[in-house]
This record gives sequence, structure tokens and C-alpha cells, in this order.
Amino acid sequence: MGAIFEHSVDVRWRDTDALAHVNHVVFLTYLEEGRDAFYAQVLGSDPIYVVARLEIDMRREVRYEDKRVTVRIAVERVGTTSMTTRETVVTPAGETAAEARVVTVRWDADSRKPVPFSDAERARLATSMTA
Amino acid sequence: MGAIFEHSVDVRWRDTDALAHVNHVVFLTYLEEGRDAFYAQVLGSDPIYVVARLEIDMRREVRYEDKRVTVRIAVERVGTTSMTTRETVVTPAGETAAEARVVTVRWDADSRKPVPFSDAERARLATSMTA
Amino acid sequence: MGAIFEHSVDVRWRDTDALAHVNHVVFLTYLEEGRDAFYAQVLGSDPIYVVARLEIDMRREVRYEDKRVTVRIAVERVGTTSMTTRETVVTPAGETAAEARVVTVRWDADSRKPVPFSDAERARLATSMTA
Amino acid sequence: MGAIFEHSVDVRWRDTDALAHVNHVVFLTYLEEGRDAFYAQVLGSDPIYVVARLEIDMRREVRYEDKRVTVRIAVERVGTTSMTTRETVVTPAGETAAEARVVTVRWDADSRKPVPFSDAERARLATSMTA
Repeated sequence: MGAIFEHSVDVRWRDTDALAHVNHVVFLTYLEEGRDAFYAQVLGSDPIYVVARLEIDMRREVRYEDKRVTVRIAVERVGTTSMTTRETVVTPAGETAAEARVVTVRWDADSRKPVPFSDAERARLATSMTA
Repeated sequence: MGAIFEHSVDVRWRDTDALAHVNHVVFLTYLEEGRDAFYAQVLGSDPIYVVARLEIDMRREVRYEDKRVTVRIAVERVGTTSMTTRETVVTPAGETAAEARVVTVRWDADSRKPVPFSDAERARLATSMTA
Repeated sequence: MGAIFEHSVDVRWRDTDALAHVNHVVFLTYLEEGRDAFYAQVLGSDPIYVVARLEIDMRREVRYEDKRVTVRIAVERVGTTSMTTRETVVTPAGETAAEARVVTVRWDADSRKPVPFSDAERARLATSMTA
Repeated sequence: MGAIFEHSVDVRWRDTDALAHVNHVVFLTYLEEGRDAFYAQVLGSDPIYVVARLEIDMRREVRYEDKRVTVRIAVERVGTTSMTTRETVVTPAGETAAEARVVTVRWDADSRKPVPFSDAERARLATSMTA
């Protein structure tokens, strides 16, 4: 049983839009930053992957004044070439701003096709899976 | 029964990332541009809304060389304060790059709370609903 | 003597920030889109280059309601590996939103170093130069 | 004589483009983050300003692998409504990636016009000026 991985992301002024809050699209960039940090820690390198499917519920606005958010990543399932993660954006006040389930696919940048995780990678990802 | 609304979005160089394709996050910006154009046409003004929920399947890479994509918007359901749309990103070759279902909520920018569609808005949106 | 090249860029909602106008950084993306279209027309292909120096005066806000801007590109100087252009962002009302001078350098993506324009490229760029 | 202000900015995957480096436009976002942090520290609040003029020399690529950059801000001149700063982006290896001079204008968000610094603001900014 693995702990939930946490990563802090600074809110940038450029993340806001004319409704004076962080544009909803940027929530996916926050998730991406958390996921990349997770991958880097668990796999020990910057992984190459693509996002195949994403579901997200936006619960709450994030504003520039929030300064930073915390992204939580929990592995739900590790497949041959793909991984499913539960991903959450949390405000400094501890409130959930967004909850997502994301399917990513390990990617071969040269052939531009999915590629299986190695046994070592799968083992490391499995260890990080929440029970 | 309404026709499916279509809107063309130019691919920008800034939309790409180091995998030499359009970053998946930008697909949501393409959808947003299509949805805003849909709203503007059907409601006759730039609407103020927030995205409450979004599901997206990424089917295919979009590359800078594609130059533009077509976004298709079809209304699935109109509620009191929310609307559900089916949204598709299509490449110039006619291939589906992404398919999404999006729940948006009419928004009052001053109170920062959901606000009901007016009867006139609901009528216009209902007319545009695909059978 | 060449005519001034013009290219239209759609304003996206994501281009705005919490001051309810297009973020100044995005003006450079508008210039980039105009410049890429210029390069594509004059050189007949998507060129690979980097921006080495840029000066920009921001004269006026662009807002989402403006819907689109026109980018004008005029070649000022063509060097061995570099080119200097005068670039302007114009609103639909015909007002100058930004004026820039930009030095770009032809780039070899593999060696990550500057590379000279070919004679054919230089000839085509020189023809497009404003007198 | 003030010390040079430093602020660290994390490089995001979304900052890269298809040349596998941080897009030049994003350098301005890095500067903006540094400048906003400077303003917040010196003035004690998030200031409202617009960028009126910017000159930037791009000296070196920043890549995702760099993970973060340091932005240095030094005040060059404080005027009635405007401020000129020297701004630098430095890589983790200590190399200068970009050098800029930026003129910002204190802004009234309601009237959408320049507004003078208060005497207290000018005094605090002057103290931070490098000799």
C-alpha cells in the first residue's frame, strides 16, 4: 500500500482568465505537473507518455491570490501500456478544487505508438498503488 | 432537431509541446473556443459560464502541420443552470482527435455563483438540441 | 520592394487574464503566428528558427470582445543566419495594439545551433523586404 | 542601494514547444512571475500594472530538464506612473538565459488608465533600487 503522492504547483498570473480565476484548462496543467513529478520520483526519470482519457470535476475556483495548489496523485491501476490515476487539486485552505481520473499511456516518441512498461517500472508503480 | 454546430480553430505553434504535438491540455482550449462560438451564435452574446465537469477521450495526435481543427458542438441536455454538450475535435483529414462530454454552468460573475438560464436562452438552446 | 504581409489571428478566451484583457505575453504569440505564416508563404515551408531579440511597445489593450487581430510583418534586414522584422498587432478598429522589432535566427534543430539561410531563401526574403 | 531580488519559477512541461525547449514567449511569463513576487514583497500587496515596453535578449535555451529558473529583478528607474526594471532569467547552472528591460505602468483596473504610485510606494521602490 503506497502513500498518496503530493506535489506543490505555484499559481501563475498567466493561469488566470477574464473571469479573474484560474482558467479551467490550466487545472489539467496542474495535474500534469503533479503527475510528471510522481513519475519522476517513482520511475526515477522523466517518463514519456500521452494522456488517453481524462475525467475531471471542477469543484471550486482557484484564484491568483491562492498562490499555490497541491496536486495529489494515487495510482488506481497499472496495465500493460497504460496507467490509471486519481488526481486531485487542493487549495491552500485544504479544499478540493478539482478531482480527476486520468488514463495515461506509455509512449514511444520515435514510433509515436504506445509501448509497454518494463517489468521494473511496473513493479515500482505497483508498489506506489494505494490499497 | 438542430444541426451540429461547427467552428474552426487555428493551431498555434505555442499549442505544441516537446513531444512535437499539440499538448493534450490545449484540446480543452479548442473545445472552449468552439463552445464560446456556439454560445455566441445561439444566445447572441458572449455567455458567462464555468466548466463543472469534463470527460475527454484523446484519440489521435494533432500536430502543428495540421494547421487547424474543426470543433463540433451538440447540445445533449439543458438544465436550470447547466448544459451538457458533446464536443469533438476533428482534424483536417476528417479524423476524430478527441471526443468530450462537457457540463457547463451559467455563471454570475459578480456573486461568483450559478445562475439560471433565462426562458429565452433555454428556448434557443433547446432548439439547437440534436434529436 | 515588397508589400507588408498580413495575417489574421483569432483571439481566444484563454489569451485573457484577470485584468480582463489579453495578457501582454500573448501578444508575442500573436506575432509568432504572423511570422510563421510569413515564413511559410515566403519560404514555402515551416521554417525552424529561434527568437534572439525582441523589443515591443504595448500601445493598447486587446480584449476578448475584439475577436481577432491582424499581424503585419515587414522585413527590415536579412543577415547570414538572422533576420530582423518589424511586426505590428492591429485591432479590428485599425488601432495599433503593439509594435515590435524582432531578430530571429535560422536554427538547426539537431545540432541546436544557428544555420545560414540558403541562397534561395535569402533571395526570397530579400524580395519581400520593404523598400 | 538595494539588493537584487530573486524569485524561483518552476519550469512546466506545458512551457515547452515542438523544438523541445521552453517557447520564447514563456520567458516573459517567467519574468512576470518574478516581477509580481518583487512587487508583492516591496509594496506588500499584489500590484495592478500593465507592461508598456519590453526589450529582451534570449541568450540560451531553457529545457524541461532544467526544472526551474531563477528570475532576478533590479529597479532601474521609478517614475510617476511607471517603473523600469532590469530582469534576468538564470538557469540552474548559473547561465543567463535571457536579459530584459521592462517598463511597467501602475494601472487603475476600473478606469483602465495609468495611475500614479503613492508616495509610500515610490519610497519603498526607491529603497529597492540598485545603486
